[in-house]
Amino acid sequence: MTVDVGIIGATGAVGQRLIQLLDPHPDFEIAALSASAESAGESYRDAAKWRINHPIPETVAEMTVRETDPDEMPDDVDLVFSSLPSSVGERVEPDFCEAGYIVSSNSSNARRDEDVPLTIPEVNADHLDLIEVQRDERGWDGALVKNPNCSTITMVPPLAALDEAFGLESITVSTLQAVSGAGYSGVTSMEIIDNAIPHIGGEEKKMETESRKLLGSFDGAEVDWHTARVDASCNRIPTLDGHLENVWTDTAEDVTAEEAAEVMREYPPLDLHSSPDQLVHVYEEPDRPQPRLDRGRENGMAIAVGGIQETDGGIQFNCLAHNTMRGAAGASILNGELLLENGYL
Amino acid sequence: MTVDVGIIGATGAVGQRLIQLLDPHPDFEIAALSASAESAGESYRDAAKWRINHPIPETVAEMTVRETDPDEMPDDVDLVFSSLPSSVGERVEPDFCEAGYIVSSNSSNARRDEDVPLTIPEVNADHLDLIEVQRDERGWDGALVKNPNCSTITMVPPLAALDEAFGLESITVSTLQAVSGAGYSGVTSMEIIDNAIPHIGGEEKKMETESRKLLGSFDGAEVDWHTARVDASCNRIPTLDGHLENVWTDTAEDVTAEEAAEVMREYPPLDLHSSPDQLVHVYEEPDRPQPRLDRGRENGMAIAVGGIQETDGGIQFNCLAHNTMRGAAGASILNGELLLENGYL
Amino acid sequence: MTVDVGIIGATGAVGQRLIQLLDPHPDFEIAALSASAESAGESYRDAAKWRINHPIPETVAEMTVRETDPDEMPDDVDLVFSSLPSSVGERVEPDFCEAGYIVSSNSSNARRDEDVPLTIPEVNADHLDLIEVQRDERGWDGALVKNPNCSTITMVPPLAALDEAFGLESITVSTLQAVSGAGYSGVTSMEIIDNAIPHIGGEEKKMETESRKLLGSFDGAEVDWHTARVDASCNRIPTLDGHLENVWTDTAEDVTAEEAAEVMREYPPLDLHSSPDQLVHVYEEPDRPQPRLDRGRENGMAIAVGGIQETDGGIQFNCLAHNTMRGAAGASILNGELLLENGYL
Amino acid sequence: MTVDVGIIGATGAVGQRLIQLLDPHPDFEIAALSASAESAGESYRDAAKWRINHPIPETVAEMTVRETDPDEMPDDVDLVFSSLPSSVGERVEPDFCEAGYIVSSNSSNARRDEDVPLTIPEVNADHLDLIEVQRDERGWDGALVKNPNCSTITMVPPLAALDEAFGLESITVSTLQAVSGAGYSGVTSMEIIDNAIPHIGGEEKKMETESRKLLGSFDGAEVDWHTARVDASCNRIPTLDGHLENVWTDTAEDVTAEEAAEVMREYPPLDLHSSPDQLVHVYEEPDRPQPRLDRGRENGMAIAVGGIQETDGGIQFNCLAHNTMRGAAGASILNGELLLENGYL
Repeated sequence: MTVDVGIIGATGAVGQRLIQLLDPHPDFEIAALSASAESAGESYRDAAKWRINHPIPETVAEMTVRETDPDEMPDDVDLVFSSLPSSVGERVEPDFCEAGYIVSSNSSNARRDEDVPLTIPEVNADHLDLIEVQRDERGWDGALVKNPNCSTITMVPPLAALDEAFGLESITVSTLQAVSGAGYSGVTSMEIIDNAIPHIGGEEKKMETESRKLLGSFDGAEVDWHTARVDASCNRIPTLDGHLENVWTDTAEDVTAEEAAEVMREYPPLDLHSSPDQLVHVYEEPDRPQPRLDRGRENGMAIAVGGIQETDGGIQFNCLAHNTMRGAAGASILNGELLLENGYL
Repeated sequence: MTVDVGIIGATGAVGQRLIQLLDPHPDFEIAALSASAESAGESYRDAAKWRINHPIPETVAEMTVRETDPDEMPDDVDLVFSSLPSSVGERVEPDFCEAGYIVSSNSSNARRDEDVPLTIPEVNADHLDLIEVQRDERGWDGALVKNPNCSTITMVPPLAALDEAFGLESITVSTLQAVSGAGYSGVTSMEIIDNAIPHIGGEEKKMETESRKLLGSFDGAEVDWHTARVDASCNRIPTLDGHLENVWTDTAEDVTAEEAAEVMREYPPLDLHSSPDQLVHVYEEPDRPQPRLDRGRENGMAIAVGGIQETDGGIQFNCLAHNTMRGAAGASILNGELLLENGYL
Repeated sequence: MTVDVGIIGATGAVGQRLIQLLDPHPDFEIAALSASAESAGESYRDAAKWRINHPIPETVAEMTVRETDPDEMPDDVDLVFSSLPSSVGERVEPDFCEAGYIVSSNSSNARRDEDVPLTIPEVNADHLDLIEVQRDERGWDGALVKNPNCSTITMVPPLAALDEAFGLESITVSTLQAVSGAGYSGVTSMEIIDNAIPHIGGEEKKMETESRKLLGSFDGAEVDWHTARVDASCNRIPTLDGHLENVWTDTAEDVTAEEAAEVMREYPPLDLHSSPDQLVHVYEEPDRPQPRLDRGRENGMAIAVGGIQETDGGIQFNCLAHNTMRGAAGASILNGELLLENGYL
Repeated sequence: MTVDVGIIGATGAVGQRLIQLLDPHPDFEIAALSASAESAGESYRDAAKWRINHPIPETVAEMTVRETDPDEMPDDVDLVFSSLPSSVGERVEPDFCEAGYIVSSNSSNARRDEDVPLTIPEVNADHLDLIEVQRDERGWDGALVKNPNCSTITMVPPLAALDEAFGLESITVSTLQAVSGAGYSGVTSMEIIDNAIPHIGGEEKKMETESRKLLGSFDGAEVDWHTARVDASCNRIPTLDGHLENVWTDTAEDVTAEEAAEVMREYPPLDLHSSPDQLVHVYEEPDRPQPRLDRGRENGMAIAVGGIQETDGGIQFNCLAHNTMRGAAGASILNGELLLENGYL
């Protein structure tokens, strides 16, 4: 028995990755695709400028793109993956939830809302039950679940491993982010070739808040955010895929580099279809992980860590994840798998 | 009256920049060029694969390359600029000093030696008199003066401004470094296109130590290193020139972003030929400085700063400098100008 | 006495280069700037996202942007440089000409019109007098003069040298074009990093027709297009500035590589302000010209040629020019200088 | 039954691709690896700086690297894949052949020798029997078989399709070649970022001669080279993998673009393990093929063609192949499979 799913915002960079990851998928079957009103009525092949280096799946290519409206969704769709621009997501995602759809969304709107679960299944699956609070408050039959921002997803698993074992007091992070994080047209070639841009609008704030919500604890009623101080500085570099990050932490207990590596390596994976066999891969080579070489580990769903060193007061390390796989499309699908596992579908 | 200068290690990336900056120069005139033994006897045009996008100066092109040996230097040379590989510099620079030459060196050897001045003229010109200690101890007629590593030079001027005004307690820095920092053949295209490398051998250590020596105080006998904790993480990115850095500081006194900007902007420049009119340029635009757009400010000798923000305990900012101009060739020439100004030539 | 000039379409990539080249200029002074209606009323600083690595000229930065309409032009403007999108140029350039302005345009509309001079001053200055025919036919007080497409400008000077000396029968050209040729937002980073695109819409046709018009002869009434067969294939590559082209020709007379080099080197320059001292620079090194190293020759206004070889029936060579300088903004300014020299201003 | 194979020159870029393609392979099993004398005795993991974005196969990682000498080969090895530098290949490949090994070589030496088969199995498998001539002349028990240069392999299959159907009279080709074609260290980042290089040493000559030998006919005694005139111009661009080429042909018979596409599409594939299901993929989209999007078709073994147009006298098209897969490692393996199929192993 598979679940029929819809994809809203299906033509963009993340939408295309969603299709790539769902073709095929053991639990989910694509039943509907939506995009902006101008594309409605076109075949997906015509509406999407397909730019992934795997051929477009033939069955999807011939599907007709719908308007992004719950009334346009087929009745048998139970789960909707959303990769809408946040301004659109803010407007239409509640409509889908109200109409009874469960929405697993990558859009940045509502991530910090008190009654919206923000989850990385391997890290804080228990937060998912915030759905009950959400339904009580909003009167929805459906539900809205968010995955975090791609740069946040990259660092949170190794941070969670450290936090559980040694307690985190502060986090400082500098990111080297790939251009695909801004969507296909988000960064022009004139902006980024032979260059780097030390600013990504709103990104620092996202990392500083979403990480604390993810690392927080849920008592059945609300999420108590982690109290660690988080300082982020975000940079765009001329790399296609894969966000690389330099992280410094202060820990409550003393930690050696070996202990840090060990708790990261042993951080428990999940048995969900898209969850990697090992969540955090720790490299011994000092020059790894590197975006082009390591972003594809475990189908792009692993977190790669390297350069673990002790500092005066904590641990310094580098981490990397594929921003449109683990950091976006794969994250939404993994949340979908968690929803299924936990009986919400 | 101009000073005749020699350039040892003249064919590499920094050597070519030295020639570009000295053609012409009001105080210095190129009188001799050296390279490795294989190139000795060739014209500079043949020995150097000239890759700067200004034509090679004609007078230099026809000069004969010498061996890197003090016996090969013409007698009328008083100042030698060194851009040798550090392993070679370690071996031959003392020979030049012993033979009476004053060496302004960009090579990384000996920078942390107790009796070797490591100077950025605008920041710690007073350290130059460590030459007296050096001569006493080593019995040299010449002298050895070093400029710091390119990534250190980039951050130290704004840090010095903050330190003087508010006191620095800790510094955390993440670098996005251009490929030219590794020399022409240092980074292959296969390594860096669509990629980034979170490791530059020895660079973190250089930043952590050289910055503390530069910000230290000299009492006429020795340099008392600054006590701030410095943590660095160094990355190579696919950019040609210009090192961009994200810096976080903890300061002894409270500082606002405006105050931080003000002390940086007002940090006093020097009246040396190669010193910029304004040492630190502060940008208000949040997405600046950017390597390609801003590395050329004031002939590549300015430091560009942006993204100044208050943090809990200090100030966060981004800074940028042209790594082979301000960070290497220009740094050595500026030290040469300081030596002249201070009567050592 | 300087001529007051207006720039219509002043905020784009070519518009910014026009401003850079006119600040200052001995004959022309910027008196008015226009852009699309949304920008009208803003300062140029706000309306243009300035992306050239020279600071924006202060006087220009504070000018108010006007609507692109002849009624908005100050009366004392005599010459208008146009870098409008071709669809806009097609609509408004005739209005300016009818209102009495002389328009030197880089836009691609109307280049092949029978009564519109398409000129590279060093190559076919005599075509300028097509203005008389144009005024007769259209009843304009003003006039419309075009420069060719950037990729066409790159190859025509060396081709003209060969044609005059040996006669051209066929031309085959493959281009490696920089991203700036498409404007700032024309090529996204996702499209071009680690990639190349073997298609630029309409470009092959432009090269095949414009080159034949430029190499044609003007008898005072009409231009008789050159009869050489021209086959072009156009590619976009991940380079910022500078179009590189591989060219093969069949010539009527036998030519040696040396003879070809000689006629190119000796192709006469003009004495206009922006015309280079030597129009065609011929490199002996087989791996030159290269975009990054050679696009800046003579302030970006020279044509660089290399790799000249004899083939069975003709000559093969590579050529390069800076596409937004010699190939666009500089080309329009040079046409402006020619208009002044020939008494049209 | 599998054939034990050795790889000589196993640590370079092509050597690594050979290992990737042979792990696993239904017919071949890696039994020995060689590299230069300095690496001999090391594990492959230590000797090779593995840079492919698939993890190094564990069994291979622990193999001990041998010297490149037939005496060092295990007795049970029957087939040797060679990806040596050509100067080394020239010296040692004959030793291996004399010692009885069959060598399938990617090295550029000896490709034009009269008695050395140069084969693309789908195109000229019949040339393989030149081995008999070779053995007669050289008295070898082994044999030497070559695959062509990567840029030649890219264009020959579509040219062969055109030649068989319509007859080729001349070929003009411009290449946009990826940096991996020069090996890992062949092109530095300083040379190629924001740049292109219109020269690859010896490459034009390789394309002009190897293509004529490949398209020639073999009568059992010698290969009669094709008489078409071939003119090539070769360029390096900032792309990692995939050579893109613009090709113009003059054909003996008139051809329409549709007919050209048809004969290319229907060009018969082979039933060898590594031969693609369809040899030439023809794209209708005018902007395809593109290196990053299309180099991976059919595991990197397909030829992609697009932009087919009629010219005055022939056909113009663009073609693309993965240069280290179809153009090097895959080509040698395919020749190995052909040797097996034809009973030479």
